[in-house]
Formats: sequence, structure tokens, C-alpha cells
Amino acid sequence: MSEFISDANFNELVVDTTLDNRNDEGPMTLENFTKLMVQFYELGWMRGSGGAMGCISGKELMISPSALQKERIREQDVFVYNISEKTEVQRPPNKRITVSSCSVLFSLIMKETGSECVIHTHSKSANLITQLIKTDSFEISHQEYIKGIYDPFSGKTLKYSDTLSIPIIDNMPSESQLLEPIRGVLDNHPQAIAVLVRNHGLFVWGPTWESTKIMTECIDYLLELSIDMLKNNIPLVNEGAFEKEDNLSEKLRTLMFSDMAPV
Amino acid sequence: MSEFISDANFNELVVDTTLDNRNDEGPMTLENFTKLMVQFYELGWMRGSGGAMGCISGKELMISPSALQKERIREQDVFVYNISEKTEVQRPPNKRITVSSCSVLFSLIMKETGSECVIHTHSKSANLITQLIKTDSFEISHQEYIKGIYDPFSGKTLKYSDTLSIPIIDNMPSESQLLEPIRGVLDNHPQAIAVLVRNHGLFVWGPTWESTKIMTECIDYLLELSIDMLKNNIPLVNEGAFEKEDNLSEKLRTLMFSDMAPV
Amino acid sequence: MSEFISDANFNELVVDTTLDNRNDEGPMTLENFTKLMVQFYELGWMRGSGGAMGCISGKELMISPSALQKERIREQDVFVYNISEKTEVQRPPNKRITVSSCSVLFSLIMKETGSECVIHTHSKSANLITQLIKTDSFEISHQEYIKGIYDPFSGKTLKYSDTLSIPIIDNMPSESQLLEPIRGVLDNHPQAIAVLVRNHGLFVWGPTWESTKIMTECIDYLLELSIDMLKNNIPLVNEGAFEKEDNLSEKLRTLMFSDMAPV
Amino acid sequence: MSEFISDANFNELVVDTTLDNRNDEGPMTLENFTKLMVQFYELGWMRGSGGAMGCISGKELMISPSALQKERIREQDVFVYNISEKTEVQRPPNKRITVSSCSVLFSLIMKETGSECVIHTHSKSANLITQLIKTDSFEISHQEYIKGIYDPFSGKTLKYSDTLSIPIIDNMPSESQLLEPIRGVLDNHPQAIAVLVRNHGLFVWGPTWESTKIMTECIDYLLELSIDMLKNNIPLVNEGAFEKEDNLSEKLRTLMFSDMAPV
Repeated sequence: MSEFISDANFNELVVDTTLDNRNDEGPMTLENFTKLMVQFYELGWMRGSGGAMGCISGKELMISPSALQKERIREQDVFVYNISEKTEVQRPPNKRITVSSCSVLFSLIMKETGSECVIHTHSKSANLITQLIKTDSFEISHQEYIKGIYDPFSGKTLKYSDTLSIPIIDNMPSESQLLEPIRGVLDNHPQAIAVLVRNHGLFVWGPTWESTKIMTECIDYLLELSIDMLKNNIPLVNEGAFEKEDNLSEKLRTLMFSDMAPV
Repeated sequence: MSEFISDANFNELVVDTTLDNRNDEGPMTLENFTKLMVQFYELGWMRGSGGAMGCISGKELMISPSALQKERIREQDVFVYNISEKTEVQRPPNKRITVSSCSVLFSLIMKETGSECVIHTHSKSANLITQLIKTDSFEISHQEYIKGIYDPFSGKTLKYSDTLSIPIIDNMPSESQLLEPIRGVLDNHPQAIAVLVRNHGLFVWGPTWESTKIMTECIDYLLELSIDMLKNNIPLVNEGAFEKEDNLSEKLRTLMFSDMAPV
Repeated sequence: MSEFISDANFNELVVDTTLDNRNDEGPMTLENFTKLMVQFYELGWMRGSGGAMGCISGKELMISPSALQKERIREQDVFVYNISEKTEVQRPPNKRITVSSCSVLFSLIMKETGSECVIHTHSKSANLITQLIKTDSFEISHQEYIKGIYDPFSGKTLKYSDTLSIPIIDNMPSESQLLEPIRGVLDNHPQAIAVLVRNHGLFVWGPTWESTKIMTECIDYLLELSIDMLKNNIPLVNEGAFEKEDNLSEKLRTLMFSDMAPV
Repeated sequence: MSEFISDANFNELVVDTTLDNRNDEGPMTLENFTKLMVQFYELGWMRGSGGAMGCISGKELMISPSALQKERIREQDVFVYNISEKTEVQRPPNKRITVSSCSVLFSLIMKETGSECVIHTHSKSANLITQLIKTDSFEISHQEYIKGIYDPFSGKTLKYSDTLSIPIIDNMPSESQLLEPIRGVLDNHPQAIAVLVRNHGLFVWGPTWESTKIMTECIDYLLELSIDMLKNNIPLVNEGAFEKEDNLSEKLRTLMFSDMAPV
């Protein structure tokens, strides 16, 4: 694999000085990064070395390594890149370890959406729901956790009765082949903050690492609930759900979130 | 949102000097509060920043913050109010963080019932059961964990063969709009110690934080069990269950619990 | 409740000097006792203050307190009795706390079987299986975990193709009313090392705390598996299972286990 | 049981000096061994003293003890053998404790495949799937986690659209009687990196402890997912799956893995 520092989208990333001010807790640190990997493993999102996270912290981009046990990575195992200078700041001491093959997907999503963070999970619910739903999107309405999802256009969270829509794309032999399908999602579904990959998992992105993690948890809950709802023949979308425009006339994604969500 | 210190019900709360004597362990502390948030997260009750807790400790009322990851809140992130002086004692250093939008529901419940603690969970079982049961209450009898539920009228716990009844109300676009439906539950079902909110979650209240936590766990177990029972076409209420009066002639809620429960 | 030190079965218990030699790790300690409570809580066996453990360690009998949150009890909260002198060695500093209402069941089982330890769980599987099986016993054969169960008559573990049989009794309004039904189980099913209580939970006893904990885990696994097997219409007992005598001509329970089990 | 140091396959094991270089983290240590036992217990793989692990570290072979609670074993409880000198380096201080009865299976697998590590789990999914599938192999295709499985012949991981095939053998009264059936699996399915034992559990082997653990997690996920897929009548193998040769003309197992897997 060619070096990530030559990746086209990474090279177009610019340092966003407003990011730190958006964080509830503070910018991502390496210590927090590795602790979150443990937490995501325990949630069943990153078993068998699966899953990945990319996160911008100030002028640095941190990405998890490929093929390592995610609950065991140490701070020194995280790949760090300088966004301003387009350099590699650190890589794992074991030279055989490469950066996550999701890295090129992360840089695409970050560049296109202005997101600070992308989380990729292999949760069983995310996989199973794509097998139960044969269409190209997962949709659900009238759920409290929908209020935990941000709308990049309004800068506010969705309402309880809104329909959350997550595109589903087919899996490909390699992660890099997901680049074009994900670009298609970003182009055609500018309101999307997540995409499901059939028989594979979930990608979620957001303005801060905190909001991205929160949204990933909300979505994971909704996917797991949906599997039970389908089993009981309960429709996922209520008839009274607010119908959202699918094709917005202009692309006004802001990621400047002015409102916050569930309690 | 207007400041919680101007909330009508909060302003009518008085310091109950008997509270400390009721505690098995001791009054709530900030250290314990944040540890319980972690535990509730791990139980699946507070994922995605969801869920909340309000607890009276001596002359202070502690309430969890809104929109923060519940397993990560620090002691300084908890909102604390002085009940005697109706002042704000502390709030999170991050000024963008607001108090839980459940705060106004907590003060209502505390004022009306004399409860020291209210726990609000987003457990998946609590959500799913409200979709499986179309009526306005969840009822179950002949279960050992029913003995873990207090009856505010008798001051004792329910019996094994009693019917535990938990009202179900519909969800609303915002938490504050649940104020009137919950007031209705408190007025019409004075024996209630919990309410289910459809497609949302569960609220449980009790005389101490210990009893409230215990009851929340008992109810969560019963909800999860009930989903399996319904799947197997097992009725939740046994025909021989003791029928309780639904409309007590006078409101004698005591919250002076003289008996204790399961082993 | 009258003091446990006047309990008839407790008064007939004698110190068994062979116990310490049977332990794999060593006799139970208060530190270990409270740590096991945490572990059992995390396994879902002791939610909502439910569940209990009684354990003989040398000349002392330790029993968990009633109604306290099991994952939070401290060493000082455990009731300790001297078996030789029939005295109370310690009780929780909070005088309102009483010993587990299972204490009288534990002393009965210990006296009748020579067991060092009894574990009582409220696992959801233990509850649900008693609702799925309408007869008065749970039976399963041809499972590896059956090899984790001791036969008090042979002093060896059961074989893979043996039928494990666990009597099911109906629940009663109070724990003390389970005394006679459990006595009936001990009299009529001398090979039993566990009993299921319908809509309530499970009791398991064995020669050491280690073997009792191991058997409780094996049984819990088998109960959970059985629920899935029944859901898939798979019979729990294989036709080729070895049929055990139900009524042994003389009561030769030994609890001197010479063989050990699964890997 | 005769001493493991006289085991025929153990006596033919030779020290592989390339092993350490294959490790991502480093060779297994006793500290890591016991920590992994705790993790495997928490994953539900080693309840009730079940499950086992054997691991080569330099010139030593470490094997878990039999019948001990796996989450509680200490470094001194692990059996350690010197492969060069065919001696026992350490055994548990409690002389009643014997080495895992899987030890003879581990030495067979290690000798025949050159694997550094074998993990044996009692996961509920591994057990249940063998009851749902009546044939002699579990097969699944078109799943991302298949990319976490190595092919000992190509030295690379399987592809997304490959069919992962895991032989299923019947359980036997004792572990040692699984020796011949497992030898049959190794002879007839040289590409196998795992075997399922009906009503019992799973064995997984690989070139390093890291890859073996990762593969065990990938397989466990796939087994759990498969149970849900079967419940929903979703075929496990996609029609377009790549068909692998079952009988390779010559046995060229290499275990020299040049490629790595999921993210």
C-alpha cells in the first residue's frame, strides 16, 4: 500500500481552528484514543482486529493501525499525521504494521463533510440489519434516540418524529474499493452522517469525536432495536413520520451544530 | 432554556431531614453519582448520552448534565442545587453544557411523591416492551422480582403474587412536554413508582437512591423477561394474581418503607 | 425475623476439618466473598439486590446480607457465624440490615448434604426455563458442560452422555416457605446438586466454594443454551442418554469428589 | 493421566526460531497468558472452568490447567514445558491440579500444522451452531470477517467472497478420545484452521497467539451471526461464493502468513 501521506484527500485537508472550541471535553489525545478502542471492543464493535477510528485533533490526524487487536493498541501504535505539513508524525515501532485500510475512506469523508472524526464498527447488529433489509437504506422514525443524530444542514439534531435514513452500500473485496460507493453516498445523500456496508459494518462521522461517538451509540441502539422490531413485524417508520427532502437544492452542509440532544 | 432554579416544583421542594436516616449506605455523593453513571452506561441504560439521574442528598439536589457521555462525566460536570436557598451550587465548567432536560420532570416527581431519587433509563427492553404492549400499562404478576418493588401506600414491598403495574405514556417531541402526562400518571396512579415512555425509556422513583436503583434493576429484569415471555406466548399476569384497587379513595402516599425485599 | 443463630439446622452443623483440603485455591475469605458478589452481579445473577451466597470457611459460616446491592457490599456487610460456638461473629454496622432470608435454606442444605457452599442466583435463564418447562424437572443430556457437574454418590463428575436432572419447585410468597419444598428435593432426589424455583431462580450447592461456583456457571450456560434449543425444537435429552436410577436404595451421598471436570 | 512430557507429539515438537519474528506484540508471557484467560472468560468462552489455551513462546510451551476457574488462574498455575529438553518447567503448587486434558490435542495440532497457539472455547454460539447444522461442516461466505481468517496454503487471508469452511466432529466422552477425529480433520482438511466439536465447543489454531486470538474472535462473531441468519432463513453461503478445492493434491501448509486482515 502506498503511503497515506500521498493520499489525495488527505492532502486537501486543512486545519480547522474552530474544532477545539466545538469539543465538549477537549481535543482527542492519544491516551483517550487507545482507551476508546478498548471501550469499542467491549461494546462488540471491534472484535477480531476489526473496526477503526480516524480523528482530527488540532493540526494532527490520528488513525488506528490495521490488523492489530484494537483493545490492546498502545499510544505508540496509533498513526499520527500532521495536516499542515502533510507529514507522518508517528507510526508503530513494529514496521510491519500498516495504517488502517479505512484511512483513505476517512480522509474522503473528512474532506467532503468537514467532520473531525469517523468511527467504523463491525457491530453484529449493523451487519445483520443489512441482511434483513434488502433495499438501499435503513430508515426509522419516532424513536427518542433519533434526537441524538445531527442534521449537517440545519446544524440541529433531528426531531423525534423525523425519519433517520442511513444509506446501505454493498461490500467490496477491499476497503479501498469502498471509496467510490462512499463518495456516491456523500454526493447523493448530503444529509447522511453514516453509511451501512452490507455484511460488513457501519461508518459514522460528525463534527467532533464526542458527537461522532454519541451518534454511533445511538445508531447502534437503533439498529439492534430494529432487528427486534422486524422480528415482531413492527414497521420501522411510522406513517406519521415527517418526510424529508431527499434532494436538497444546494449543498449547504454546515456541521456547525447549535443544538444538542438526548438526556 | 430558562434556569432550573426558577422551576416551580424545585421552588416548592423542602429539605427532608429524615432522608439520611433512610439510606442503607449513606447520602449520595458526587463521587458515587459519577460512578453510578458508568455502571448505568455498562448496563445499557445510558448509551449515546441518553438517560439521566436526579438525586437529593441532604439539602442539595444533584442532576446529571444534558448531552454529555454519561460514562465520562466528572464530578464537576454534575449540576448541584441548594434546596433550602434555591441556588445553583455548581455547574459544569463548560458553559455550553446545560442541565438535563429531565430536570423539570425530576422536580415534579420529587415534589409530588417525596422521592429522593429519580432514574431515567434508555434501556432497549423498556423501549421494546412499549411497542409490544399496545395498552397504556405494563402489568406482570407472580415474579420474585416484584418483591423488590415498594408500594408507597403500604410502606412495604409488593408480594410475589401481586400485580406490578407501570403506566405507559406516549413520547413527546421534547422532555418538557412529558411534564403534563407524568403529572397525570402521578395523579391517577398514586401507587406508581415508575412510568414507561413509549419508544423512549423508563423513569423510576423511590425514597432513597439505593431503593430507586434496586427498583430500576428489578423492573429492567422484568421487562427483559417479559419480552421473552411474550415471544413464547406466556401471559404476563397470572389469573390468580391479587387485584389491586386502582383508585384509592384518598392519597396516602407515605414513602416510609418499613419492609425490604429480595435476596 | 428471629436470629439465625437459633436456627435448628445451623445448630446441628459441625465443623468439617476436611474442607480446607478440598479447596483448589483455599478457604473462602471476606475479601473473596465480596469480590464474587461483584462478579455474580456482572453475570446478571444478582441484580436488584437479588441472589445470595452462603459459604463455610473453616469454623465460620459467611452469609450475604438481605436487600443490599450485591455488587456494593463491603466485607463488613457480610454476616459471619461461628459454627463451633454458635455465635454471631460479625454483622453489618447498619443495624437495619438483616441476614439473607435464604440463610435458613442454606443451613438446611449444608446440614443435609455436607456442602460447604450454596449459591442462589436470579439469572434470567433460570427464571425463563421454568416457564418453558411445565414439568417438575429440567433434564438435559449429551452436553460437554454436564461433565462439570458432580454426582454426590459416586464422588465423580457426570459423563457427557448422562442426563443432568434439576428438580423444579414452585415459588412461595417468602423464602422461608421454600424450606419444606427444598427438604422434599433433598429427600427425594439425593443426587440433586441444584434446584430451580419457578419464576424466581436457582440454588446450587457443592463440596467447596470453587466447585459450587463452577457448577453454577455450567448450569447457567446449560439453561441459556436450552432456551435456544427449545426455540429451535431441539430435544434437550438425547434418546441414547444413560438413564439414572431415580430412587437410590440407600442414601450414600458422600461429597468426597475424586474427579474433576471440564477443560 | 500419564505425564504430558511423555506425549508422543510433544516429543516431536521442535523449537521454531522464526516464531518470535512473526509476533505483532511479542512472544506470549505468563502475565499475558493469565490476562487472556480473564478476557476469554468475560467473552463467555471459558465459563465453569471450561476452555483452554496452549501457546509456544520461544522454547517453552504453556498450557492452562484443568478444572480451575479460568478467570482466576495465577501465573504459577500455568503448566510450562521446555520443548528442547522435554522437561516440565513449572506446574501449579497445588499438586492435585493436572494439565488441561486438551494438552494432547494441542501437541497434535501444533506438530501437524506448525501452529504456535491453540485456543479452545466453550462459547454458546459454537455449541448451538453444531446443533442447528446437521452436516459435518459449517460454511459461510461473503462476510467481512472471513478476511480475518488465514489460509495456511496461500499464506494469505481469505477473501470476502471465499467460503470459510470449519469441520464439525462429534463429541466424545473424554477429550483424549477427540485425538483421532482431530487427526482426521488435519489429514482430510489441511486448509482448516479450526474445528467445531458438536455440543461442546471450538478449537482454533494459528501461526502466532495474536493471529489465533483474532481468528477465534472472527469465527465466534460469524457463528453468532449465523445463528441469527438461520433464524431468518438467510443462507450462510452465497451462490456466487468462490468454491475452494477440498482435496489439495499435496500438503503444502506453510503458516508463513504474508498478508494481514480486517480493519
